[in-house]
Amino acid sequence: MSIVVVGSVAFDSVASPSGRAENILGGAATYFALAASYFTEVRMVAVVGEDFREEYENVLRKRNIDTRGIEHAKGKTFRWGGQYLDNLNEAKTDFTELNVFERFQPKIPDEYQDSKFLFLANIQPSLQAAVRLKMEAVRLTGGDTMNYWIKDFRAELLETLKLVNILLINDGETKMLAEERSLPRAAKKVLAMGPQALVVKHGEYGATIFFREGAFGIGSHPFRAPALPIEEVKDPTGAGDSFAGGFMGYLASQPQPNRESLKRALFYGGVMGSFAVERFGTERLQDLKREEIEGRFQVFRELTHLE
Amino acid sequence: MSIVVVGSVAFDSVASPSGRAENILGGAATYFALAASYFTEVRMVAVVGEDFREEYENVLRKRNIDTRGIEHAKGKTFRWGGQYLDNLNEAKTDFTELNVFERFQPKIPDEYQDSKFLFLANIQPSLQAAVRLKMEAVRLTGGDTMNYWIKDFRAELLETLKLVNILLINDGETKMLAEERSLPRAAKKVLAMGPQALVVKHGEYGATIFFREGAFGIGSHPFRAPALPIEEVKDPTGAGDSFAGGFMGYLASQPQPNRESLKRALFYGGVMGSFAVERFGTERLQDLKREEIEGRFQVFRELTHLE
Repeated sequence: MSIVVVGSVAFDSVASPSGRAENILGGAATYFALAASYFTEVRMVAVVGEDFREEYENVLRKRNIDTRGIEHAKGKTFRWGGQYLDNLNEAKTDFTELNVFERFQPKIPDEYQDSKFLFLANIQPSLQAAVRLKMEAVRLTGGDTMNYWIKDFRAELLETLKLVNILLINDGETKMLAEERSLPRAAKKVLAMGPQALVVKHGEYGATIFFREGAFGIGSHPFRAPALPIEEVKDPTGAGDSFAGGFMGYLASQPQPNRESLKRALFYGGVMGSFAVERFGTERLQDLKREEIEGRFQVFRELTHLE
Repeated sequence: MSIVVVGSVAFDSVASPSGRAENILGGAATYFALAASYFTEVRMVAVVGEDFREEYENVLRKRNIDTRGIEHAKGKTFRWGGQYLDNLNEAKTDFTELNVFERFQPKIPDEYQDSKFLFLANIQPSLQAAVRLKMEAVRLTGGDTMNYWIKDFRAELLETLKLVNILLINDGETKMLAEERSLPRAAKKVLAMGPQALVVKHGEYGATIFFREGAFGIGSHPFRAPALPIEEVKDPTGAGDSFAGGFMGYLASQPQPNRESLKRALFYGGVMGSFAVERFGTERLQDLKREEIEGRFQVFRELTHLE
């Protein structure tokens, strides 16, 4: 089943202890789409500027990603610069140039209207809600957000959360959104805001999925997937979006979200996140082989599997 | 098989968001011994003062812990005060009164000399080494240490590490000891210092065991166990020592450390750590039932188990 992703496309400039890269293809929707493209058909909704050359769009097309929803606007593409020199777990932003992204009004091509899966990457909550409401066939919506929206756009975000089935955020965002320091309690509060499931991403420690009682017709016990201890994290940018791509992409490829498919989705999320960080930008996600993905899935499984 | 533990016995005063408790029984050896006592016979080596009344020793005896190696010295028992009001993951120390612990010279009763398992809780590295060298029957030694010894007693610590088979420390200590920011690389460096296995404790995210190539006759793939998301962590004091007690106690109860028993030991470590934090001090560890432990083991297993 196809999945539509709405979010940013960007050119990133990144410095990490492993080196640096300038103006490389990035953005949440890009990472998500590449990661999800190994599981299902992906359709993007985004905006780029005049500097977004054919070669970049070809990176997406090579992965069979539908780019008809990428609007080409007058001006420059969103640019972000950041570094991980002191801390691989958190980016220090050097600059943000929103450019054409500042006035992003997502336009959904008619051809996307039969999609049943939707992922709302990290954009203004009201835009997320508007997209969801425009897509009547959708039956499973995943969403992301960030501290900025939680803090300054809380009312809009709370409206959007009512439309999101599975929210994927990190530990700090969960606690901030719930105004609660205990993670399990924070998770309960977030689930009371609307989502049936909450995936909390723990970075190098994996992720936990919490369920609202009765959600997806399954019990409410949480489930946790590990992350692979990786020797050299070259560039953590996009790890969370790649996680979301693996998670949602796998779910969209399955007949029904149930406990077992949600568990496997969490593992595939970790797998795609682990590939993403091995090279700068999206390089590693551009031409993975199915065997590499399945091989790493087995490594993840073995990592915590008791007989 | 019996296990000997050498370390501190203390009276703790603790404040957390759940409340406070004054002068409660604590200390690394106490937490370790109580946790391990559910798996095997435990023998303690420690020092206490004249204020260590019969009722405290009875807490240990009720769990069949051998207290003949607890020296009663003139003076007061080690006291520690700390709080977790701002951060449940890290104690802020209010006071440390070493008292009789300052001149601790571990004395091993002759009756302990047939023990094949030993755990060196967090004490001065030279004392750890001296204990190990005095116990000739020991064939598996576990050990702990902390940032203070890593920083100011490095030479002594490096000598001790040659005598330790399994080192159990946390993420920060591992990176500090190895002087390396990537955890898998840091683990490799620590394993080159002597231990055949390194257990890195991640607090609320569980723990990972790394193996030296060929250690225990098994492969060198790491293994990771989760921690349970607990709604109300009342008192995190002793969680790491209880983890070590569950881990080492389980290993001592098994015929041979192999990949499967080491994996299970990591889960039992998490289980005992999760019980410890549910109440102040050692209260929860004083009268657990075997079914509670096995029940939680299954919960931990289910938490990450893929069919």
